[in-house]
Amino acid sequence: MSIERIAIIGLGLIGGSIGLALREMLPDIATTGWDADRDVRRKAAERGLVGKVSDSADDAVRDAQLVILCVPVGAMGAAAQSIAGALPPGAIVSDVGSSKHSVAQAIAKALPDAVVVPAHPVAGTEKSGPEAGFPELFRHRWCILTPEDATPAEAVEQVAAVWQGLGAKVEIMEPAHHDLVLAVTSHIPHLIAYTIVGTASDLEDVTRGEVIKYSAGGFRDFTRIAASDPTMWRDVFLTNRDAVLEVLGRFTEDLTALQRAIRNGDGDTLFELFERTRTIRRSIIEEGQDDARPDFGRSDH
Amino acid sequence: MSIERIAIIGLGLIGGSIGLALREMLPDIATTGWDADRDVRRKAAERGLVGKVSDSADDAVRDAQLVILCVPVGAMGAAAQSIAGALPPGAIVSDVGSSKHSVAQAIAKALPDAVVVPAHPVAGTEKSGPEAGFPELFRHRWCILTPEDATPAEAVEQVAAVWQGLGAKVEIMEPAHHDLVLAVTSHIPHLIAYTIVGTASDLEDVTRGEVIKYSAGGFRDFTRIAASDPTMWRDVFLTNRDAVLEVLGRFTEDLTALQRAIRNGDGDTLFELFERTRTIRRSIIEEGQDDARPDFGRSDH
Repeated sequence: MSIERIAIIGLGLIGGSIGLALREMLPDIATTGWDADRDVRRKAAERGLVGKVSDSADDAVRDAQLVILCVPVGAMGAAAQSIAGALPPGAIVSDVGSSKHSVAQAIAKALPDAVVVPAHPVAGTEKSGPEAGFPELFRHRWCILTPEDATPAEAVEQVAAVWQGLGAKVEIMEPAHHDLVLAVTSHIPHLIAYTIVGTASDLEDVTRGEVIKYSAGGFRDFTRIAASDPTMWRDVFLTNRDAVLEVLGRFTEDLTALQRAIRNGDGDTLFELFERTRTIRRSIIEEGQDDARPDFGRSDH
Repeated sequence: MSIERIAIIGLGLIGGSIGLALREMLPDIATTGWDADRDVRRKAAERGLVGKVSDSADDAVRDAQLVILCVPVGAMGAAAQSIAGALPPGAIVSDVGSSKHSVAQAIAKALPDAVVVPAHPVAGTEKSGPEAGFPELFRHRWCILTPEDATPAEAVEQVAAVWQGLGAKVEIMEPAHHDLVLAVTSHIPHLIAYTIVGTASDLEDVTRGEVIKYSAGGFRDFTRIAASDPTMWRDVFLTNRDAVLEVLGRFTEDLTALQRAIRNGDGDTLFELFERTRTIRRSIIEEGQDDARPDFGRSDH
């Protein structure tokens, strides 16, 4: 049996992109959707993000075989609670949260009898809201599923099949390991980017205008990441606290060592690191996870 | 009098791009060039980066009205020394270094009688070498000149005119202020990017393969910056030590405050910062210093 009816709760960048991708790549699946924000529902209907935008969470999920919660991770418990009354028995509940351990707990608490297959598509842009989604967002990106051992294999396979249908590659992982891996590849990079953009805007001796004018020296890349949705990211740091603090501790140690090397004029230590980090870039391009054009083709050459 | 003959010493990304840009945008200016590396000279001649690739620095500068030193900032003194014997009286010496105070000192020491107009085009990509240059690199980017008070205004104007001819916008700044501004907008972002890429590749519990696979969560942007030329960046940190350490201290303070907010579950502090940093991004896009396409158009939508 494959999934024929999907409900999407939360119609921002990720929920909207799932809806558009389903319509384009798996058009036989019927979609319903709901968002707590009336204005988002209206825009979602205008853009046709799902087949039917419902007036309540209950209505959206009443006939669904798979419900995907696409809300900030801090709102997952409430979103799960909002569908508890109408969720059909046997329906699978999934999500798209960037931290998995705490989200799985929140969903299980609100829906103790549901079949839950937590998911995290590692894809996104700095934009958010119902206007931001597009169907190709998940293509060639990884989607990590973190089911419990007791979760029926068939449910995991059905969720995996949907993501593969949207162009994603699927990986199964332990929730705690997911949270550590993503702390490294996503959460700490965002935290650092937010911090340096904040630091730059607070300096007394350098004006905001100067920061903006000369941002092409590297800073602008950080501002892109630091333009990501504030609510989503606040929740990520609050729900993945332990892994974030662990990796942040390592980062701070390493930064302190470089600070010392700069203070002591130790060029060899700097050069050794700068040389080593190049090879990771090469692998990311080879794996198709980034664009090899210099400067992302910004200079249009 | 405007400049009719330019010599470029160092034919990597920046020197090569200047040569190509001159050929395309200011074709009446004759160009010569030299690089300490024989292999780079051969490739530069093949790509036609300058009108004539000379066999020695002396030959390259013998008839020049303007010499631009395009070598890593730690090599500026030696590059200046290498042209000391053949530099025509009255010729202007400029450079493209990312730190200005120490470079100006190094050039002045090697060429005490020369007219020096230090310059820093705030542009670049993560690529390096004679294959990496392209003529549009400086278009719509800022080029900062840091002349001394005693430098003849005409020399400053001539150098400014060349950069404007290549499509850049020119700003005059005190060297020390330049070094502080660039520490914020370029040097610290690079240092942080190098550090986090190093931290990620050293973790025992997260494999290198995982870091690469899930890099689309934010990490990949840092790897692009951390793929920049190691020699160039080692020299930047060694020559702009004071400003880098100053800004790094501010950054570390701010990061520590966020760490505490995460540890204490203080979502308001996180949200306040994450909301504030969005507005800087908007200004950078409005000023034309970055590409507004979500995700830099990586998803091709």
